[in-house]
Amino acid sequence: MRATTIHAAGDIRLEDRPAPEIAEPTEAIVKVVAGCICGSDLWPYRGENPVEAGSTIGHELVGVVEEVGAGVREFRPGDFVIAPFVHCDNTCAHCRAGATSACQNQGFTESGQAEYAKVHQADGSLVKTEGMPDDSMIPSLLTLSDVMATGWHAAVAAGVRAGSTAVVVGDGAVGLCAVLAAAQLGAERVVTMSRHEPRQKIATEFGATDIVAERGEDGEQQVLDLTDGIGADAVLECVGTGAAMTTAFNIARPGSTVGFVGVPHGVELPLRKMFGKNVGLAGGMAPVRTYLPDLLERVVSGAIDPGVVFDMTLPLAEVAEGYRAMDERRAIKVLLQP
Amino acid sequence: MRATTIHAAGDIRLEDRPAPEIAEPTEAIVKVVAGCICGSDLWPYRGENPVEAGSTIGHELVGVVEEVGAGVREFRPGDFVIAPFVHCDNTCAHCRAGATSACQNQGFTESGQAEYAKVHQADGSLVKTEGMPDDSMIPSLLTLSDVMATGWHAAVAAGVRAGSTAVVVGDGAVGLCAVLAAAQLGAERVVTMSRHEPRQKIATEFGATDIVAERGEDGEQQVLDLTDGIGADAVLECVGTGAAMTTAFNIARPGSTVGFVGVPHGVELPLRKMFGKNVGLAGGMAPVRTYLPDLLERVVSGAIDPGVVFDMTLPLAEVAEGYRAMDERRAIKVLLQP
Repeated sequence: MRATTIHAAGDIRLEDRPAPEIAEPTEAIVKVVAGCICGSDLWPYRGENPVEAGSTIGHELVGVVEEVGAGVREFRPGDFVIAPFVHCDNTCAHCRAGATSACQNQGFTESGQAEYAKVHQADGSLVKTEGMPDDSMIPSLLTLSDVMATGWHAAVAAGVRAGSTAVVVGDGAVGLCAVLAAAQLGAERVVTMSRHEPRQKIATEFGATDIVAERGEDGEQQVLDLTDGIGADAVLECVGTGAAMTTAFNIARPGSTVGFVGVPHGVELPLRKMFGKNVGLAGGMAPVRTYLPDLLERVVSGAIDPGVVFDMTLPLAEVAEGYRAMDERRAIKVLLQP
Repeated sequence: MRATTIHAAGDIRLEDRPAPEIAEPTEAIVKVVAGCICGSDLWPYRGENPVEAGSTIGHELVGVVEEVGAGVREFRPGDFVIAPFVHCDNTCAHCRAGATSACQNQGFTESGQAEYAKVHQADGSLVKTEGMPDDSMIPSLLTLSDVMATGWHAAVAAGVRAGSTAVVVGDGAVGLCAVLAAAQLGAERVVTMSRHEPRQKIATEFGATDIVAERGEDGEQQVLDLTDGIGADAVLECVGTGAAMTTAFNIARPGSTVGFVGVPHGVELPLRKMFGKNVGLAGGMAPVRTYLPDLLERVVSGAIDPGVVFDMTLPLAEVAEGYRAMDERRAIKVLLQP
């Protein structure tokens, strides 16, 4: 099959690789209908994570079940499915408590930017649609594989509730989805920290009530001014850098929680400030499967349309251009069609 | 008045100091009936915090109101009061949200190990008893000034609820109160990590169902074994050292929260592990005033008797011996009678 591989920082290729095969009875092979590039794929692309030369990359996808292992009961070839990037049996103690991203039989999608992908623990991981979805719904369904669920997790972890003032740090696709999540969870005020006009526009469409274009101390002061000096009820940290985390803790009101979903890189937590202000930290790798049924219902009902974060669609053959476009911030998020 | 002062690490003295005087109309002067030594007083005593030579020390007390400022409405000379170590107006936005330890008019008790202490924002900070309490109740009332409320905060921050398995890291007075708090909040299983027999005994009296005497990796393994490898639903970190925090995150189950109330010293948070396991951190300086009315009711009704953490009572004149006894772990917590 054709699969995206990474050979070094900046070196993305589409190459021939053996298609994945069923090795365990709990697995399924999915033919990818749409995949995409994640903000976290840019870490190795930019040389900030180590790269195993020639390894496949990509972990978000929707598609059609091609083959299932002998133990798979809930899915059949032909089912249209959303594959969470982190796989789970959905029956272990951690899964039962909602922590499906820490499943005791955890697995990961390894070839989401390819023609086929293997899903471990298919019965626990996958969620199917009723029949084949309309093409127009594919982008939104695809976001449920990771980015929308991750933005949702930021909002849940930060404790957004009806009437909250929520501030989203980061205007990448996850940050935009976090805006949407905060609005859906009833936040009265959703502040997005964004200085890019196209992203501000989507944020507003998703429910942002205020935009803070400044960064660093100036941006923090703006948020404090917006909240009468009190700070945010909930801060959704959707970047993962030290600067973003610093801002998050500086604008969080005492007793609140910073929900974090950006893979942390070079972050040192301000523990003394957290202690003095009683500002907590919660979140991490999103338990996508936990949120999926609810989010699917919201997409199908038209309550949310997170697919608009895809502002570029490319054939899989042009995946390298997709990475360049995201790296240079020419694209918010790139959808790939095998 | 006679007041405890610290001149250098290990150098505690009882000296004459001017009695505090009303400077703002919102203040009150309290004649100390009982004060005590806090675990956090040992940080400067051990040279781990800087010392301003000759400064007064001590922040926990109960007593009788001696004098009130012109603006104080709720208290009169003669009232028996519990003084939270952190003062608050109990009306600002932070206080209204329950974050009374981050009050916009925050103040602190500065001479709790003395004959008199000043309380800022007396109307907001103080809580009085109905009439003069019986002598036998003084120790338990005194714990509400800090240690019991701090243990309670650990349990609340960690999200202890009915049926939880809670693990308390640390068997100081705060840790013991955290055991009591977890049991009161309905934890089905309360594990105390303690290797000191007298402390184990109090923990058991307070509701601990299991004792883990080992520390470090051995202790962590014991907790995991006790929980079928799943980890604790809630971890109450009541020490503040790096080793205690490491243990806390190693035994917390995915999706849970470490509640921390030990003033952090030399702690580096395992952020990648927190991200991967979705284990949050919450807590900090306890909002004592927030919990005080409920805790007072529990003490008065006899539901809790946290005063048993005081295993040594000394006249104020022997305060230096009190510090030595706590430093050498000959005493869990020392009550001082002026």
